[in-house]
Amino acid sequence: MPDTFDMNLVQRGARLRRSPYFDATRRHGCRAYTVYNHMFLPSAYDDPVKEYWHLLEHVAVWDVSVERQVEISGRDGFALTQFLTPRDLSKCKLGQGKYVVIVDQDGGIVNDPVLVRLGKNRFWLALADSDVLLFAKGVAAFADLDVEIREPDVSPMQIQGSKAKQVMKALFGPKVLDLGYYFFMETKLDGIPVVVTRTGWTGELGYEIYLCDGSKGDELWEKVMDAGRPYNIRPTGPSDIRRIEAGILNYGADMTLENNPFEVGLGWLVDLDKKADYVGKKALRRIKKEGAKRKLVGVEIHGPRIGYWLPEYWPVHHGGKQVGKLTALTYSPRLEKNIGYAMVPARLSKLGTRISVITPGGERQATVVRRPFVDPSKETPKS
Amino acid sequence: MPDTFDMNLVQRGARLRRSPYFDATRRHGCRAYTVYNHMFLPSAYDDPVKEYWHLLEHVAVWDVSVERQVEISGRDGFALTQFLTPRDLSKCKLGQGKYVVIVDQDGGIVNDPVLVRLGKNRFWLALADSDVLLFAKGVAAFADLDVEIREPDVSPMQIQGSKAKQVMKALFGPKVLDLGYYFFMETKLDGIPVVVTRTGWTGELGYEIYLCDGSKGDELWEKVMDAGRPYNIRPTGPSDIRRIEAGILNYGADMTLENNPFEVGLGWLVDLDKKADYVGKKALRRIKKEGAKRKLVGVEIHGPRIGYWLPEYWPVHHGGKQVGKLTALTYSPRLEKNIGYAMVPARLSKLGTRISVITPGGERQATVVRRPFVDPSKETPKS
Repeated sequence: MPDTFDMNLVQRGARLRRSPYFDATRRHGCRAYTVYNHMFLPSAYDDPVKEYWHLLEHVAVWDVSVERQVEISGRDGFALTQFLTPRDLSKCKLGQGKYVVIVDQDGGIVNDPVLVRLGKNRFWLALADSDVLLFAKGVAAFADLDVEIREPDVSPMQIQGSKAKQVMKALFGPKVLDLGYYFFMETKLDGIPVVVTRTGWTGELGYEIYLCDGSKGDELWEKVMDAGRPYNIRPTGPSDIRRIEAGILNYGADMTLENNPFEVGLGWLVDLDKKADYVGKKALRRIKKEGAKRKLVGVEIHGPRIGYWLPEYWPVHHGGKQVGKLTALTYSPRLEKNIGYAMVPARLSKLGTRISVITPGGERQATVVRRPFVDPSKETPKS
Repeated sequence: MPDTFDMNLVQRGARLRRSPYFDATRRHGCRAYTVYNHMFLPSAYDDPVKEYWHLLEHVAVWDVSVERQVEISGRDGFALTQFLTPRDLSKCKLGQGKYVVIVDQDGGIVNDPVLVRLGKNRFWLALADSDVLLFAKGVAAFADLDVEIREPDVSPMQIQGSKAKQVMKALFGPKVLDLGYYFFMETKLDGIPVVVTRTGWTGELGYEIYLCDGSKGDELWEKVMDAGRPYNIRPTGPSDIRRIEAGILNYGADMTLENNPFEVGLGWLVDLDKKADYVGKKALRRIKKEGAKRKLVGVEIHGPRIGYWLPEYWPVHHGGKQVGKLTALTYSPRLEKNIGYAMVPARLSKLGTRISVITPGGERQATVVRRPFVDPSKETPKS
């Protein structure tokens, strides 16, 4: 460590955790990290537009160890997990994954993890940026259930893009091609224990490899790079451009504890008729009955390109006054449009509604449009 | 926003919250931010040694809005808060603050907040870096108590250093000087609602001002700067050097959910004879009876200066093999020594024990020494 003081290193204290792929991401030229679930998230190796096109035309790998897992197991593992989410898990098969929401007693969104069912009573939740481990432990404190709740040694990476199948086949053989969308398999790669899921955060064809032995991060990373070389694989950050095109939400920005699932278009994850009780059931029933008062809508912002990401919430105006806020913004290189999401009063959520966004460079007209912006029926990731 | 891509801005997305003082910290030259409780924490304006001496000889102000508050209120507010911490709150007066731990059912540390009692049934917890809001909401989900749990609009700043009393007197008049260590008062500063506490993260004389109206952050900041100008006040980051000298712990680095209070020297926050039940009581009784298997000790690392902060855990060796890890490291400019903390087996925790630390520059001999390194009876902050 140098004696002189490097400002760029200030954020890198021992408090912030490093992923098993951390050394590999440094070696492969990662140039920016953000912090997510108390851990470094490699966010950029290159210009985001170059990374976007690479994802679409070739294949990208990125470190999402920050999707920390919560493992719920024990005799009452199913009962507790059912209690933690409004989605009815009696319909979740072994070997299947589900996108779920977790809410508090008021129906406020705590997290939107991908859940996988590893056994009758054994589940993993791959988390967005909030401490669901603590929420689940809190719920269990009074629940009088026979459960174990812990963070297992599991660290996902994503392999996404049009050549993802070729890379996965090179790594795992043809059997991996049988995996259906949102299904998974437990396997080994040259002795390294992994779980392979057909999921992702892109709207592209893609997989995640959940590494189950943190000491093997570097080894797994290089095996993926080797297998991907013929397909021009490269490490990138998660593509904000592509996930916004796909209408995917970013917890903490597009939704927080202040929002309920109906506001942000996640009502389909709420089974109000689910027989089992769950946290927030009463509140969600009431909200559904009354109707959501505001909605997260897709917006197209008129005029020249603004930028590729949103540094902070910008105000949304209608009739000369603030009615909401922009939660996501990017510029789609293939649509050649500024696109994003805005939280607006329900009365302003109809397609075609005209609003305006107050950018640092001045007011811009905008139109409420359909979200997702491309491939609404998810034909690409399911292909 | 520029069209070109600025890597330094990558981490600054809308997902990461900004404090009410954010604009002020930028304006006053903050050069590095880290992320804490999903929020930007201004961590450095200058060289850490210069900031350290300024704190000792003059007075410093820093933005700790990241100490997000959890407010517990309602008819059963006292009962829930008692249930959330091993410390016996029946001994906590109105107007008094307490340093507390919160643990899970296994006795693992969830957080170490400063708690203030605002009313018979109304408490704030000023948090370290974990989502206690979710833990508390989880606990309440099954508790059948009449409580409200929320994050209020409250954002602390710290005024710390030898001239802190003069600055506080200039701001609030002589009444503020009557505040005892860990007591607080609710007041207004030119109409801005605040809570003033006699607490801090330095071991120096100091106060915190909890701003209770986020829209007034800039105004409060400039009032503090104005009042502090005659005393040479300057904004700094939290001083890792000074907090390590004082033996103060940093949650996430020196202790995590994997540690119990007895291991890290926080056994004095555990009232095993407390009449009321609380989360973790059974586990803590068992751990106390069996004795902690490892201990966090103060260490002095021999040889020339290593550096002012620890980028990641370094291994601690004894008898030629790894027995633990270093969790904190700095160089004390006044002791002229490398000091820090190490987690070691209990048998190696006796003062004077020789261990070694594997630094990136090679192995260094070290000695287990008393923690805190200066002012063990806290005469300075209580003065």
